[in-house]
Amino acid sequence: MSDNDKKVSRRAFIQQTAAAGVGLMLISPAQLLAKANQSKGPVMSTNIKSKGYAATDTSGKLSPWEFERRPVGDNDILIEIKYASICHSDIHQMKGHWGKQQYPQVPGHEIVGIVTAVGRNVTKFKVGDRAGVGCMVDSNLEHESCKNGEEQYCPETVFTYGYPEKSSPTGISQGGYSTNIVVRDHFAVHIPDNISFQEAAPLLCAGITTYSPLMKVDLKKGFKVGVAGIGGLGHMAIKLAVSKGAEVYGFTTSPDKVKDILAFGAKEAIVMDSPAKLAPYKGKLDYMISTIPVQFDVAAYASVVKPYGFFTQVGMPEGFELTLSNIGLSISRVNFNASLIGGMPETQEVVTYCADNNVLPQIQIIKAEQINEAWEKVVNKEARYRYVIDAATF
Amino acid sequence: MSDNDKKVSRRAFIQQTAAAGVGLMLISPAQLLAKANQSKGPVMSTNIKSKGYAATDTSGKLSPWEFERRPVGDNDILIEIKYASICHSDIHQMKGHWGKQQYPQVPGHEIVGIVTAVGRNVTKFKVGDRAGVGCMVDSNLEHESCKNGEEQYCPETVFTYGYPEKSSPTGISQGGYSTNIVVRDHFAVHIPDNISFQEAAPLLCAGITTYSPLMKVDLKKGFKVGVAGIGGLGHMAIKLAVSKGAEVYGFTTSPDKVKDILAFGAKEAIVMDSPAKLAPYKGKLDYMISTIPVQFDVAAYASVVKPYGFFTQVGMPEGFELTLSNIGLSISRVNFNASLIGGMPETQEVVTYCADNNVLPQIQIIKAEQINEAWEKVVNKEARYRYVIDAATF
Repeated sequence: MSDNDKKVSRRAFIQQTAAAGVGLMLISPAQLLAKANQSKGPVMSTNIKSKGYAATDTSGKLSPWEFERRPVGDNDILIEIKYASICHSDIHQMKGHWGKQQYPQVPGHEIVGIVTAVGRNVTKFKVGDRAGVGCMVDSNLEHESCKNGEEQYCPETVFTYGYPEKSSPTGISQGGYSTNIVVRDHFAVHIPDNISFQEAAPLLCAGITTYSPLMKVDLKKGFKVGVAGIGGLGHMAIKLAVSKGAEVYGFTTSPDKVKDILAFGAKEAIVMDSPAKLAPYKGKLDYMISTIPVQFDVAAYASVVKPYGFFTQVGMPEGFELTLSNIGLSISRVNFNASLIGGMPETQEVVTYCADNNVLPQIQIIKAEQINEAWEKVVNKEARYRYVIDAATF
Repeated sequence: MSDNDKKVSRRAFIQQTAAAGVGLMLISPAQLLAKANQSKGPVMSTNIKSKGYAATDTSGKLSPWEFERRPVGDNDILIEIKYASICHSDIHQMKGHWGKQQYPQVPGHEIVGIVTAVGRNVTKFKVGDRAGVGCMVDSNLEHESCKNGEEQYCPETVFTYGYPEKSSPTGISQGGYSTNIVVRDHFAVHIPDNISFQEAAPLLCAGITTYSPLMKVDLKKGFKVGVAGIGGLGHMAIKLAVSKGAEVYGFTTSPDKVKDILAFGAKEAIVMDSPAKLAPYKGKLDYMISTIPVQFDVAAYASVVKPYGFFTQVGMPEGFELTLSNIGLSISRVNFNASLIGGMPETQEVVTYCADNNVLPQIQIIKAEQINEAWEKVVNKEARYRYVIDAATF
């Protein structure tokens, strides 16, 4: 589909949905209402066509797929996606590492674009707004966790892809490697004008996932923070901690990342070619965050944190499981915890913070047809540091 | 060996060691010095005969064994053992669950008895004192951890059995399922007169291992504490927490322990015949301690703790490893930590505390010949709740 075709499609959609009237607020209500008579029926019950890249099995290979999304409900917004970036989680889930999946399934939970339609109850966004969507797309907002801005812990929350979703024509939520997405307004954040779409995209998962636990440890100047695993998440953890005044130590298994780690502002870059490399740091750091998305020696890494300090795991390995040495952890006396993305208020906070403070991911823009190659590079630790898909190429 | 023979042996030993003079302080120095001429040589270089039960392979079966201990050094004390109790750790280690072992090896790290000789530098104990020994027997006391009363984290510390120990005639430390033991004075605690030997024994590991983490969470009246795994350690955890005013919830897989758990003072006893049993307690407790010494669903148990609370694992499973659900832990937002026994000052503290407050383990006295049968019962969760071996039966 050419750019022109896309515009036509979009316009066609807007015209088509205009008739809803009661349900949708569009770019130019007057103009659209004028065209309402051309509508073929009630828009609210009309599915929205989308096009993207989907997994059809556990191979880790995606292919083009056309599918439908639910109509824009009263509390929903429709976003025309501009960019979606690649998270290691996308790969884990499509490969079935986190349980059996329904296919075809479109991954992607770092999504930015422009609002092209809003439901009648929506006040948070208007058509034309720049918006971002992360790992969550819907919930009934009735539970305490949603009311407290911790939507990620709500049992009703629908995650962005592969999650049972009655309203979806495919029966599951479908992610952002696609041309558009319909989400409940609550689950989209504003993308400020002082950040590019492509640099904002990775903040929706890599940014918030590292920002949330870092904010909980009360970062202050000179606070010694270790970051283990310097990929999409890890490089943001370094930049965020540095921007808050922390003294950062980056631990990587890739020798060629040393220069980058220092360029991101870390005080030291440690190449983990042997567990002995951790010894000089034993009990020295105030805190450590690990983004390592595979099994690793948790207790050994945690030993660099001072006794009774905290170690946060945000990388999600196969089966969501980690095996750790209980005796190792007892000797270091470090508290191990895990953190899952962050809530919506904090997601808005990190996007605004990064835009205002120029804390930006290092990205490489790719076309849809390069996704499979990019996924292999992510697995092989060759990403530098986030692949961002240009949604115009779907 | 009859009781009378033992007495003779002990007397013979005291006479034999009296000649040391420079190295040993004995019950009646005057009397013994009078006998010094009868001595056959310098006592400091004479090994001490001991008799106990040892593992000779990974079978988990022990058999009688006679061996020697090192002479009493300047900083050592010799203890004639009265009782030694059985800890699940003894079984794990002898079976090789924590790594390859040297055999024969005498287990036992809950040891009480009477001091029968002291080295010339020793001021902490005098002959005739009641003394207890736990999981540690020696260290050079030069590191910070020993100076801070956290000897269990010192790299120089020698654990009570199976640990390389140059001074030991067998090359490794040999534990308390035996008639006597030689330890550095620093690693013995005083057993007050207001507690029986047999009830004091389990405090040296089960007591301190649960007391130490419980004291770190600042127990107060009404503080809701979960205890998972109600065996030797768990039943002490309940009694200790209750005595400090906590509201205790005991989680067990043994339905027939319910009555006991309530008798120990717990508010509720939950029979874990299904993970669903945890659901009503989700996020409700202030803290949880797990003594479960095998693999279990850590994140599921941890979910009963309120967000950002703490969960401490003190049971040591096979390989010292635990596999936990990272996503489960992220959802509960609970901090997981592990704790290893406790330091010497705190070990003295728990013994004194339990004696003064009548916080006593529920024990069963057994003879040496019943050890193998008792071990099977421990593994089969049939212990109620600590087997204490009468050392007179070795």
